[in-house]
Amino acid sequence: VVQPPVSPRTRHDLDSLTAVALEVFHERGYDATSMEQLAAAANLSKAAFYHHISGKEDLLARGLDRALSALFGVLDEPQATTGAALDRIRHVLRRVIELEDELLAEVTVLLRLRGNSQTERDALEKRRTFDRRVAELIATAQDEGSVRSNIDAHLSARLVIGTATSIVEWYRPGGKLAASRLADEVVALTFNGLTAQGEPQHRPSVSTKRS
Amino acid sequence: VVQPPVSPRTRHDLDSLTAVALEVFHERGYDATSMEQLAAAANLSKAAFYHHISGKEDLLARGLDRALSALFGVLDEPQATTGAALDRIRHVLRRVIELEDELLAEVTVLLRLRGNSQTERDALEKRRTFDRRVAELIATAQDEGSVRSNIDAHLSARLVIGTATSIVEWYRPGGKLAASRLADEVVALTFNGLTAQGEPQHRPSVSTKRS
Repeated sequence: VVQPPVSPRTRHDLDSLTAVALEVFHERGYDATSMEQLAAAANLSKAAFYHHISGKEDLLARGLDRALSALFGVLDEPQATTGAALDRIRHVLRRVIELEDELLAEVTVLLRLRGNSQTERDALEKRRTFDRRVAELIATAQDEGSVRSNIDAHLSARLVIGTATSIVEWYRPGGKLAASRLADEVVALTFNGLTAQGEPQHRPSVSTKRS
Repeated sequence: VVQPPVSPRTRHDLDSLTAVALEVFHERGYDATSMEQLAAAANLSKAAFYHHISGKEDLLARGLDRALSALFGVLDEPQATTGAALDRIRHVLRRVIELEDELLAEVTVLLRLRGNSQTERDALEKRRTFDRRVAELIATAQDEGSVRSNIDAHLSARLVIGTATSIVEWYRPGGKLAASRLADEVVALTFNGLTAQGEPQHRPSVSTKRS
């Protein structure tokens, strides 16, 4: 992570500027955002903005660090490190969705990186490490017999994380769909699938409509 | 869609320039791409490039139109319009993954739009229409009893499409994982879920490792 050239007394300002910048990156995309737009969003002149940071890549690095620290923190939580692997996977999935609620801008910007700078490439490498850690959990669950053995653990991890992270494209915190309810739905769909459980998959279409 | 200011005889060139541009947009991101970079990728001078198109938004519009036409074309295929709804959903899912293989750059750029221009906002509106069409298929499958009735059709559509489209972040055409095999896995995970079918979800972790 790039260390911004600031003294400790400006730390609080830097944190809030990071939050403002990540909201703008989230809305417009990092590459489409100019320093002028960042300064305007923070109600600062461009000169005052440059007093705090050396450039937008510093703010990107800080925002990505916030998202990645939170994601890796989840993997170290007791519910992710002890107990049945399937329960640990469920916990990680739920927490990823909670983080998308709490840190929507930071996580979304992380998910959209193109690798156009060393800062971006470093963050992409950490994302791949996160995927590998989830794949290890799925492999453990396969050993425990709770996850189907006829699927590739690494591919499954990518698809499951892909499902959980795809929500950033439309989920909005504070809307009518609460994060906890969304987490329930993602876990249910990921764990049990779309099809009716225990029912034949092809009932005649003349069947009566269910309530 | 913005109509590029060209005569019919340059159509072939325009198509190939669109393909080149979408590859660059895919790799670098649309907003991070300059006209100079597009001209260089096409082995043209900037002046020669401008002879064909008025700006990069024209190329974006053409690429997005290519992706959206293909996606909506899938919904009109016989396998998506007749038969059991669950089979129609399966067909659409498989075809979406095939399109990600055939039109990876175009589909990926579509998925990453931020809505920064009217061209982008028009395409985003069409994406939402696509999601609604899939939600209608899921609702029909619920009426037919093949999809669980305890999940919201629109939320499920978003999650299922989210799973299928998340692969553009890592899938590479021509790699060791074929698109048809990937489609099998996505359909299996989406329809049946991650957990072992017909097995208790919490077998003791002392169970022997399965082959």
